[in-house]
Amino acid sequence: MSKTYVPNRKADEVVIFAGPCSVESAEQFDTVAEGLSKMGLSWIRGGAFKPRTSPYSFQGLGLEGVKIMEDAGKRYGLKTITEVVDTTHVVEVLEHVDGIQIGTRNMANFELLKVIGKATEGSHQPVLFKRGMAATIDEWLSAVEYITQFGNPNVMLCERGIRTFENATRFTLDIAAVPVVHQRSMYPICVDVSHPAGQTALVGDLAKAAIAAGADALMIEVHPDPKTAKSDASQQLTIPQFEELLDELRQVAAAVGKKVV
Amino acid sequence: MSKTYVPNRKADEVVIFAGPCSVESAEQFDTVAEGLSKMGLSWIRGGAFKPRTSPYSFQGLGLEGVKIMEDAGKRYGLKTITEVVDTTHVVEVLEHVDGIQIGTRNMANFELLKVIGKATEGSHQPVLFKRGMAATIDEWLSAVEYITQFGNPNVMLCERGIRTFENATRFTLDIAAVPVVHQRSMYPICVDVSHPAGQTALVGDLAKAAIAAGADALMIEVHPDPKTAKSDASQQLTIPQFEELLDELRQVAAAVGKKVV
Amino acid sequence: MSKTYVPNRKADEVVIFAGPCSVESAEQFDTVAEGLSKMGLSWIRGGAFKPRTSPYSFQGLGLEGVKIMEDAGKRYGLKTITEVVDTTHVVEVLEHVDGIQIGTRNMANFELLKVIGKATEGSHQPVLFKRGMAATIDEWLSAVEYITQFGNPNVMLCERGIRTFENATRFTLDIAAVPVVHQRSMYPICVDVSHPAGQTALVGDLAKAAIAAGADALMIEVHPDPKTAKSDASQQLTIPQFEELLDELRQVAAAVGKKVV
Amino acid sequence: MSKTYVPNRKADEVVIFAGPCSVESAEQFDTVAEGLSKMGLSWIRGGAFKPRTSPYSFQGLGLEGVKIMEDAGKRYGLKTITEVVDTTHVVEVLEHVDGIQIGTRNMANFELLKVIGKATEGSHQPVLFKRGMAATIDEWLSAVEYITQFGNPNVMLCERGIRTFENATRFTLDIAAVPVVHQRSMYPICVDVSHPAGQTALVGDLAKAAIAAGADALMIEVHPDPKTAKSDASQQLTIPQFEELLDELRQVAAAVGKKVV
Repeated sequence: MSKTYVPNRKADEVVIFAGPCSVESAEQFDTVAEGLSKMGLSWIRGGAFKPRTSPYSFQGLGLEGVKIMEDAGKRYGLKTITEVVDTTHVVEVLEHVDGIQIGTRNMANFELLKVIGKATEGSHQPVLFKRGMAATIDEWLSAVEYITQFGNPNVMLCERGIRTFENATRFTLDIAAVPVVHQRSMYPICVDVSHPAGQTALVGDLAKAAIAAGADALMIEVHPDPKTAKSDASQQLTIPQFEELLDELRQVAAAVGKKVV
Repeated sequence: MSKTYVPNRKADEVVIFAGPCSVESAEQFDTVAEGLSKMGLSWIRGGAFKPRTSPYSFQGLGLEGVKIMEDAGKRYGLKTITEVVDTTHVVEVLEHVDGIQIGTRNMANFELLKVIGKATEGSHQPVLFKRGMAATIDEWLSAVEYITQFGNPNVMLCERGIRTFENATRFTLDIAAVPVVHQRSMYPICVDVSHPAGQTALVGDLAKAAIAAGADALMIEVHPDPKTAKSDASQQLTIPQFEELLDELRQVAAAVGKKVV
Repeated sequence: MSKTYVPNRKADEVVIFAGPCSVESAEQFDTVAEGLSKMGLSWIRGGAFKPRTSPYSFQGLGLEGVKIMEDAGKRYGLKTITEVVDTTHVVEVLEHVDGIQIGTRNMANFELLKVIGKATEGSHQPVLFKRGMAATIDEWLSAVEYITQFGNPNVMLCERGIRTFENATRFTLDIAAVPVVHQRSMYPICVDVSHPAGQTALVGDLAKAAIAAGADALMIEVHPDPKTAKSDASQQLTIPQFEELLDELRQVAAAVGKKVV
Repeated sequence: MSKTYVPNRKADEVVIFAGPCSVESAEQFDTVAEGLSKMGLSWIRGGAFKPRTSPYSFQGLGLEGVKIMEDAGKRYGLKTITEVVDTTHVVEVLEHVDGIQIGTRNMANFELLKVIGKATEGSHQPVLFKRGMAATIDEWLSAVEYITQFGNPNVMLCERGIRTFENATRFTLDIAAVPVVHQRSMYPICVDVSHPAGQTALVGDLAKAAIAAGADALMIEVHPDPKTAKSDASQQLTIPQFEELLDELRQVAAAVGKKVV
């Protein structure tokens, strides 16, 4: 595992964290990794520990999934990022991936934040910190200090949609969070465009909007065969769909003086 | 007054409706009109009848303001658009402007919608129909039929931010409304970027995001001297700020295959 | 039509505004009026001008409905209250009913508010002013001044549920609005318990809660045969269901030192 | 520590969980315990592990606070309940208190829910499960199965206010959650009236409303000297204020056929 940094607001780059919602098998994950590598991207994401609303839904492959990610990352030259959900597995997961992600449901799980802050203190491993779906931007910027108080400066915030009355989309993407975070803090900001979209057809337009609004990174779910996906089937892009979108994203990024990495 | 059409989803154009929140004087409005004309734009907006939360706030110049708009529009070759707020003045206002706008507070004022539908039946005058700040997209698409049932096809929807718990911005811009409206209807969609922003510093990023998301038009408040404005002082751009932004918007528009008009 | 007053925060009374969502016929309305009169109540409500999300839904009987209400009111000794939706019929409607109501969709239809304020200036006819479904309490208390600036002191506010992400109910009843309005203003406050409930089964518990929270009045939809109702079929109580509930409401009212009228 | 049960929807009882937001000292907690005991109540609540938005706010006394609660509970014959926030201390805390509480920020911390489900499997110790501030009632009822799948039937849900656009109160109490939970599940439901109120003056009316709506329990913050409280100073009642309110609550409870315990 390489000890790398999330670019701290490199003014001219947009990082893409693409990959499947859940790591389902080595074959599935490798297929995506191979695709992303060919497209010239540098990161791959995947879910191993899945926080699901119902205990009867697919809960992820756990540590086995993390190891599948690590293998694929090495094979295809991609950095890896995955979500952690419990204080007890933070240290072990960090041994296998390049970066970790804290999900919306854990934004205010302050015990987890403290453990992650301590665990990443020496490593400089990037932490992607998603906004709680009902958290104000100020609460989010306050909570992030549970992580950064221990010294890891490689924290990137991630807007992923908030809860509102509108149900045409899964969540309401708060696009203004991008300039507001830039205004109120020094953190780079990622936009998860798949969760607010909730359906494939909306992902592309949200992704272009996020880059145009100034996002430092995007998170996009990509799956070799979305209709068979064990989670979030309706919102994942196929590899060819993603590749086509990537071309469009590169043009929008260029229009705002950035390149996609 | 020319009888023109709002472009009904011309796939390669983004219309800009810029202008002051309120028409305050002929001098103020002319200054903006001259600026927009030099920038090559085709429309100017302005508020004459102002729906204000408090009866003790500035209520607009009324019909006098509409006539100031008409004069400036003729002088500088710009089409004009203004909000109507009551059934009793719809017909008279339509004699002086090219298009009218229905504000967020009147989205469900069905009596007003019917009067406007009837009044614009023969004229083909464009109607910009803003989303209620608490209306779902489906309610909005249902309400628009109060206008279109009489036959005027020149209706453009306008997303302007919804009410949520977040107070870092004045309203939460529901950027996903752009692709959702395109998916569920044939109407073009405008994005009012000034009202959700609530502050000048956020306007530009929201405007770029809206174009990248596929908006057919933008509404942006521009004032010769925002700090002295009688309404919405904090969110209006100066003419030079707007001109600088317009260059950026043209680049984002080009990246998605459109030109700004 | 008697010139009466809504009790301005009589500390020991809870006024009940019961009646059908829509006035559908003289027979239907008389049946309810007879029932309410026998139960010892003093008011009856009904909808004649119905603001409906779709232009293809039942729009109400209009002035004919108002006259049906007036007749039944006289016959059964009940005061009548109905919603007005347009500036052009305010004066005429006021000639036939005791009180008028401004619906949630018109809270920020300031032109209508001004006309109502003027029209009721001399008459002291009560005006029930519903909260906009996305309005803060402060915006509501500001908007009410469009009515009261002309001198009619008989305004009663009416909480009717706000728009939130929760969809188990039609709207989220903001029960805290009752003490907050009492804290911030001198106006009495009514609670419409039928619209937030959205289903018959929840109406009773919300009604009891509203009285316990200190409401000065309740609005409850009652219909002789809810399953055939032309609007809001799922949330209206039958006359026997309402009578049973009224007994319970009287007990809760007594527990907080009030009587139901 | 007695092994007792939360009354599973005893149709004729309302349980009161009163006590300070945070356990601050043995003296402070004893003062409240003595007061509640004299009033004939059976439970006392207190916070030992405090989830705070900022890492620089008071974080609670931790296990020391739990032991203070245990001592006071024994001395005054009260059952004790406190919040747990991390999987690592669940078992230890359960040795010292009668019931535990899961806070709004941890409703979707599924790892914590599973640990609590397992830890309370044999003990029948009650678990009070607060609603996430942005969770729908259906998501809440789904999440509770992470706890109950292991067999502990003593789960009580707790409505504590949801996030909405209204800021006159700290959260919007969703009073309709009481009958909805009764309609959709077998769980008893508590209402935390202090957090939505956010200020002392509103607590009483919300408490009366909750009982009238059918709540099986209430949670109310009571502090010997609220103005010096280390957390939630503005919303805690003094002991005399609470005693006065308790009399009113007993009358409302009686009106709906219940007694306060």
